[in-house]
Amino acid sequence: MIRIGILGYGNLGRGVEAAIRKNDDMTLAAVYSRRDPSTLNINTPGVPVKSAAVLDEGNEEIDVLIICGGSATDLPGMTPKYAAMYNVIDSFDTHAKIPEHFGNVDEAAKSAGNIGIISCGWDPGMFSLNRVYATAVLPDGEAYTFWGKGVSQGHSDAVRRIEGVVDCRQYTIPVPAALDKVRSGENPELTTREKHTRECFVVVEEGADKARIENEIKTMPNYFSDYDTTVHFISAEEMKRDHSGLPHGGSVIYSGTTSDNTKHVIEYSLTLDSNPEFTGSVLAAYARAAARLNSEGVCGAKTVLDIAPAYLCKQDGDFLRAHLL
Amino acid sequence: MIRIGILGYGNLGRGVEAAIRKNDDMTLAAVYSRRDPSTLNINTPGVPVKSAAVLDEGNEEIDVLIICGGSATDLPGMTPKYAAMYNVIDSFDTHAKIPEHFGNVDEAAKSAGNIGIISCGWDPGMFSLNRVYATAVLPDGEAYTFWGKGVSQGHSDAVRRIEGVVDCRQYTIPVPAALDKVRSGENPELTTREKHTRECFVVVEEGADKARIENEIKTMPNYFSDYDTTVHFISAEEMKRDHSGLPHGGSVIYSGTTSDNTKHVIEYSLTLDSNPEFTGSVLAAYARAAARLNSEGVCGAKTVLDIAPAYLCKQDGDFLRAHLL
Repeated sequence: MIRIGILGYGNLGRGVEAAIRKNDDMTLAAVYSRRDPSTLNINTPGVPVKSAAVLDEGNEEIDVLIICGGSATDLPGMTPKYAAMYNVIDSFDTHAKIPEHFGNVDEAAKSAGNIGIISCGWDPGMFSLNRVYATAVLPDGEAYTFWGKGVSQGHSDAVRRIEGVVDCRQYTIPVPAALDKVRSGENPELTTREKHTRECFVVVEEGADKARIENEIKTMPNYFSDYDTTVHFISAEEMKRDHSGLPHGGSVIYSGTTSDNTKHVIEYSLTLDSNPEFTGSVLAAYARAAARLNSEGVCGAKTVLDIAPAYLCKQDGDFLRAHLL
Repeated sequence: MIRIGILGYGNLGRGVEAAIRKNDDMTLAAVYSRRDPSTLNINTPGVPVKSAAVLDEGNEEIDVLIICGGSATDLPGMTPKYAAMYNVIDSFDTHAKIPEHFGNVDEAAKSAGNIGIISCGWDPGMFSLNRVYATAVLPDGEAYTFWGKGVSQGHSDAVRRIEGVVDCRQYTIPVPAALDKVRSGENPELTTREKHTRECFVVVEEGADKARIENEIKTMPNYFSDYDTTVHFISAEEMKRDHSGLPHGGSVIYSGTTSDNTKHVIEYSLTLDSNPEFTGSVLAAYARAAARLNSEGVCGAKTVLDIAPAYLCKQDGDFLRAHLL
């Protein structure tokens, strides 16, 4: 049995917990939290909830620590720190800072003989795999990534910070005409606005100035100003009834040529009922790879690109060749 | 530069040749053929065409030999034979015999310190990768593979062997209702007949008995009797005008759950203008991996499941993490 520790018990931590229940060669050894452990009720009976502080002693009996923190402020410090004590894995998703994060984790993990797999999820993660496989197979081509329809938690949070806003759910939606163009293999140049639209469902305080709020959303730099955004004001009851899930998904579409007039289109798409449960499932599969690779003596930072698919599977090579190849 | 040898200059061999032109870190060192080399005109100027017999001396200056033979009679003998002398790669696609072929190639390659990558193409190959990744991430789920719309060369050949038939092009077509059911995530049980239909375009000799031919096609065991098949009789001119390409494609659709009522659907699909050129492109990417892995001392038989994606890419890890992860 692979003994997993989960650090952080938010949506993602619960997603990993659900994934472990689906993998009978894994056991949830403990949940670690920065909150007071006595305030946490977890979904798996009999599993200890501990203070994150005990991890610092470096002798928790776990094979892999899955770090379920945020990319902005948690993971840049936490993943290297714990890689010096345990095999670790995270879902760091700030694309621009991956090289720096990789370097920090690599140094800490290598000096301790541990493995640290970073940026495991669906983007980065499964989508990255598909961009890389397609680029390798059809070097004369182009990759397009579309996200949605799905809830962007970062954008929802940004709207919640506006004065007078009580709650928000922001959906990112690919533009159908852009998808069609890319699928046709014509390799179009697409602006940010042409690729996605944004739709916000917003609950406001009584008497709030809706026109001001709508304007603040639509003109917010980085988050909304480069997109066509629609804002709907709804009640708290409607929010709870219609928008309580965290669905997401998207597609990587790659189009390339092998000779004159010979085109090929590769499309990988995800339709996810729950973003955190799917991300948690990717983390669980790569936690298996982390445990195995480290038991073979592999250490240092890795990403999904460095790991052969067979390492993710419970089944051995003979089984995979006979049944899934 | 990675020096590639191509053994066999049919559709697939020419597909590999086209792929090498798209990869500027590879060079086509020689084409080997069982035909008289003087009768072959290849598409790449300045590259020697040699008799396959010279390979037996074991001292051709190539890094990887890409064996472009048929799975029924060529590859079972050829791949192990040449794995004892060179790094090799093939697209062996008789799924049921992969374990045996793997064993034979493994033994020959290991004893010579070479690497032999078998079953590289799109199915087995890219589709296998997607079945395995999906199964690893969502173990509680099911994979469905659909082929087409595309030309099945084996089925076309089978029809050509019927008395009175001059030429045939057989298209395999997924049933739209089956695709919809699978995409909805309901994990249906589907019979062979419910998943695909077959459509044949047939040129016959003058005065041939079309009713008999149509009946022989539709009742042919293994090939057609389990499918709903449509037969169209066309002229040789129509065949040349409308059916000269070898398009293919298909999809692997995987649907799985992570908790009660939480479903996820993963779909990978290919739309290929040319089956042999795409398969040749997969072979070229894995030939790069073969050369690299062997230079690191890796030997024995491998499949796509055993090879980390980064090995397929010309670009190094820093580049991949910065641009494609």
